[in-house]
Amino acid sequence: MAPELNVSQWFNAPQDLTLKDLRGKVVVIEAFQMLCPGCILEGIPLAKSIHAAFPSDKVAMIGLHTVFEHHDAMTPVSLKAFLHEFKVTFPVAVDKAGPNNIPQTMETYGMRGTPSLILIDPEGELRAHHFGNVSELQIGAEIATLLK
Amino acid sequence: MAPELNVSQWFNAPQDLTLKDLRGKVVVIEAFQMLCPGCILEGIPLAKSIHAAFPSDKVAMIGLHTVFEHHDAMTPVSLKAFLHEFKVTFPVAVDKAGPNNIPQTMETYGMRGTPSLILIDPEGELRAHHFGNVSELQIGAEIATLLK
Amino acid sequence: MAPELNVSQWFNAPQDLTLKDLRGKVVVIEAFQMLCPGCILEGIPLAKSIHAAFPSDKVAMIGLHTVFEHHDAMTPVSLKAFLHEFKVTFPVAVDKAGPNNIPQTMETYGMRGTPSLILIDPEGELRAHHFGNVSELQIGAEIATLLK
Amino acid sequence: MAPELNVSQWFNAPQDLTLKDLRGKVVVIEAFQMLCPGCILEGIPLAKSIHAAFPSDKVAMIGLHTVFEHHDAMTPVSLKAFLHEFKVTFPVAVDKAGPNNIPQTMETYGMRGTPSLILIDPEGELRAHHFGNVSELQIGAEIATLLK
Repeated sequence: MAPELNVSQWFNAPQDLTLKDLRGKVVVIEAFQMLCPGCILEGIPLAKSIHAAFPSDKVAMIGLHTVFEHHDAMTPVSLKAFLHEFKVTFPVAVDKAGPNNIPQTMETYGMRGTPSLILIDPEGELRAHHFGNVSELQIGAEIATLLK
Repeated sequence: MAPELNVSQWFNAPQDLTLKDLRGKVVVIEAFQMLCPGCILEGIPLAKSIHAAFPSDKVAMIGLHTVFEHHDAMTPVSLKAFLHEFKVTFPVAVDKAGPNNIPQTMETYGMRGTPSLILIDPEGELRAHHFGNVSELQIGAEIATLLK
Repeated sequence: MAPELNVSQWFNAPQDLTLKDLRGKVVVIEAFQMLCPGCILEGIPLAKSIHAAFPSDKVAMIGLHTVFEHHDAMTPVSLKAFLHEFKVTFPVAVDKAGPNNIPQTMETYGMRGTPSLILIDPEGELRAHHFGNVSELQIGAEIATLLK
Repeated sequence: MAPELNVSQWFNAPQDLTLKDLRGKVVVIEAFQMLCPGCILEGIPLAKSIHAAFPSDKVAMIGLHTVFEHHDAMTPVSLKAFLHEFKVTFPVAVDKAGPNNIPQTMETYGMRGTPSLILIDPEGELRAHHFGNVSELQIGAEIATLLK
């Protein structure tokens, strides 16, 4: 089972979300840092495309701000402006700070850096974990496979 | 049922192919003209990505050269060099010339121009018909859906 | 004459710079905000290309962080991390805060937004002022013209 | 002095052109093959940008179709359709066939392949010879330098 998210704050969400609440949908988690070039150039555009391509009652697109460096530079105040400027409208969670510099959800999932993309099936099982750039063709196929 | 292809010549194929022979696989047909900018910039790269992303025992990627203009400029001699230069390695069929300027398979399928992308399921049913640029995310999802 | 910059802080500069000190060189000023998508996707890459293409004893490439919105989100602390992550190595000035929300140099030059690109000739004359995306071909030509 | 072009046919030109006739202008020659991917993706778009960016009474943009491979595939009939489809409106010369497979102008200039870009100053001197992809910033600067 995919471990629950540890979140300190949500943006673009009328209320806090949990993976448990999202059972029945495919959940796509885009883990990013707002000042990571690969996230800005590849990860966030991919997440926006996923959000636009699949109906929200079938696929839940979620951002996860996993700050593991430059913590003072990527605060929630800066993140809020980033989401506005880059027109990110899907829910985005701030990963809860952990001991050392790695936030808790990032640690639990063993993410190696940003961007990372996680796929969870409608039963709550962790089904894919990508690090770095991934092709839209492949992600489209993986999401559709979990939708069956 | 997807109508059979009318082909005057094959490239990159050890023997002539028919849709009937391909039952059991998802068949993806990229209809293109070698001098159509949208085909060179979008359609052919997409087809090459599909060919690379899915195993060939599950998904058959096929090009279809549907020349409906500049017929003297896009002969099989020129097409052969094009396929070599653009590193197209999947089978490519030359659509058989028809009355007027429209080749026969293009006419049968009612294609509106190039690039067009056709999806056929493993039972031989026509399942999607796109004209123009399509997103990799969407095509990846459609192919995976037919693979179920 | 190009008006002098009003700067509260410099990055990537061993000492504070003035336009007066730069007489004898073409000065290119890229005015940007670190969370402006057009700056990240077009303006900063152009500025990095200019910095790489022309010798630094002939052309001085300077960034100017002209924050006129989301002031709390684009502080010098965040800017420092941005410059590190996006590998910006030319000198970058923080435009000094002004009354209302417009910083002083931005106000003086009458800039309409970000990105803006300013060209100053070796005698200190303001010679071009672009707003928005500009072509590399055109900027290359304009810089070379001032170098004569 | 830049050697004269050896041309078998012109497109997009009301009459045959010679370098001698073009004295007084900077001449930019884009040597290409219509089925060379680097030409289609980089060289031709650059040439179109140059043609659009500089006034035609100052800068003469000329294409040169230097076919050194797949000769049967890239005939003037196919080239004509290519120029139409890719909206190339500047004059294009067909390099005259030579002994072996290398056309005559390509041989005379010692071009290593396609795309190649040649710059000639208003006095007819050969001033630059690039092979492969070149940056718009650099070419813009080089053209402007010759315009002085």
